[in-house]
Amino acid sequence: MKEHDIIRSFVPLLVQNENIVVGPGDDCAAVAVEGCPKLLLTAADQLIENIHYDPADTSPEEMAAKLLKRNLSDIAAMGGSPSFANLTIATKHGSKEFFHRFLKGMADCAKLYNVSVCGGDISSVGSGNDVFTLNINGFVDSDTICLRKNAMEGDYIYVTGLIGNSYRSRHHLNFIPRLEESEFLAGHFTNTMIDVSDGLLADLGRICEASGLAAELDISAIPLRKGATLPSALSDGEDYELLFAVDPELSERLDRQWNFDCRLSRIGQIKSGHKGQISEKESGRVLSGKDSGFDHFQS
Amino acid sequence: MKEHDIIRSFVPLLVQNENIVVGPGDDCAAVAVEGCPKLLLTAADQLIENIHYDPADTSPEEMAAKLLKRNLSDIAAMGGSPSFANLTIATKHGSKEFFHRFLKGMADCAKLYNVSVCGGDISSVGSGNDVFTLNINGFVDSDTICLRKNAMEGDYIYVTGLIGNSYRSRHHLNFIPRLEESEFLAGHFTNTMIDVSDGLLADLGRICEASGLAAELDISAIPLRKGATLPSALSDGEDYELLFAVDPELSERLDRQWNFDCRLSRIGQIKSGHKGQISEKESGRVLSGKDSGFDHFQS
Repeated sequence: MKEHDIIRSFVPLLVQNENIVVGPGDDCAAVAVEGCPKLLLTAADQLIENIHYDPADTSPEEMAAKLLKRNLSDIAAMGGSPSFANLTIATKHGSKEFFHRFLKGMADCAKLYNVSVCGGDISSVGSGNDVFTLNINGFVDSDTICLRKNAMEGDYIYVTGLIGNSYRSRHHLNFIPRLEESEFLAGHFTNTMIDVSDGLLADLGRICEASGLAAELDISAIPLRKGATLPSALSDGEDYELLFAVDPELSERLDRQWNFDCRLSRIGQIKSGHKGQISEKESGRVLSGKDSGFDHFQS
Repeated sequence: MKEHDIIRSFVPLLVQNENIVVGPGDDCAAVAVEGCPKLLLTAADQLIENIHYDPADTSPEEMAAKLLKRNLSDIAAMGGSPSFANLTIATKHGSKEFFHRFLKGMADCAKLYNVSVCGGDISSVGSGNDVFTLNINGFVDSDTICLRKNAMEGDYIYVTGLIGNSYRSRHHLNFIPRLEESEFLAGHFTNTMIDVSDGLLADLGRICEASGLAAELDISAIPLRKGATLPSALSDGEDYELLFAVDPELSERLDRQWNFDCRLSRIGQIKSGHKGQISEKESGRVLSGKDSGFDHFQS
């Protein structure tokens, strides 16, 4: 079964108590904490050998940084700031050097983003793929929080940075999580955001599905990374860019005030129509929708 | 390298911000949250195929419950109450049945302990050991929190339940995390607690080491589970019982007021001496200490 299908089928079995303001289905859950004026954001993500990195071509420092940064990207997608984290390691590596380099790499990256890695677990596995996990926690104002379900018909769809060819270009290791851009955007220009981790079409599909709407994509406006082809750029994922919906009335001001190194591109519009369906603006051709599982660019 | 050595060597590299009241080295970290009168407890633990369960002899429901319960045991060890959790799955199992049974088992167990499993990640791995992780979060009063470092010379050492033979007896799957007992004990009878997960000697050694003290163990008072031999009972672990230190002045009242199904045993005393060293009361023989790595019962 695919992750999306599992989540859709079985995650509803999990009962959420009243303090869970946002449950499974966004990039983080949001928890109301007694007395705290903010919401606590919490999430967990994995880094698996041969899936999320090539062991022959990735240093322990790069592995650690990727694991933390892909979790930070989830905090950014919610409009939040990171605070503390738990780390687990299940590895075949027994060497002092590996642990020193991995944990030093984690420590350096955590310091850069002001995250305390305050707990976790380390275990050795005999064989198979190494599995590293990180649980990230942060905070967000309740009027700043960004969810997938908040898109409105007519909203413009924006994306930060470049899309595609992430793996071969090593962007998936070298990316900078969009925390500063998120702080600028969240609550001011948008309350509808996701990070592009599973592919632009899949992740836009999730915004549309959660919002009960469809979208039109201006294919020619998608900012491709060098070496990327359009079909794979739309489905590859691991871009760790912010994908968000903006009220057209705020669009001009957003374009004017955007003052970050990374590019900002308007790539489409939220439309009424089949829930979750994404069409090409020019031709009207359906690119992806509920039934495709969002797995492939459909031609 | 052994986990304990890695933690001792490299975890100090990780910088802890001011909001981390208790960092790595206890069963959970404790985090001060703006405005919240309690401390947030956070931890993560793993369940790894062929290490923490035998795949031929463990149902998906049992796997899920063990993963949650071993994390709950960490919350109990700190004197806290659980609240919410993140789950990650890296598995070879692709079947709908597996996911349904595992997630239903998780949901049932989480409901029993009033825990919201509010997020996480699911990924498939081609081969090797399945790895499941859970990040648990809870809350504790700052005057109730139990740490390893709080033992005082002369404190009596107590343990709940029975020790040893956990794996073969299936106690490691069927145990009940000692949350109720912890609530009764924490702040009232002790502020020094750990759960017995890595073996009685290892875990008592951690209390002693963190407290800068030694301990004397009354071997004949250790409550062995049926089928357990003493040496393996002291080192096997996976008991998930509470091990804690009690001021002798509170001891009589504790014995009198103990009103739980599980047994309560006084098994030794905190002493001055070599930091972390554990001796047999009767003979004075050293059982374990800093240099042993706490890995084996030394004869």
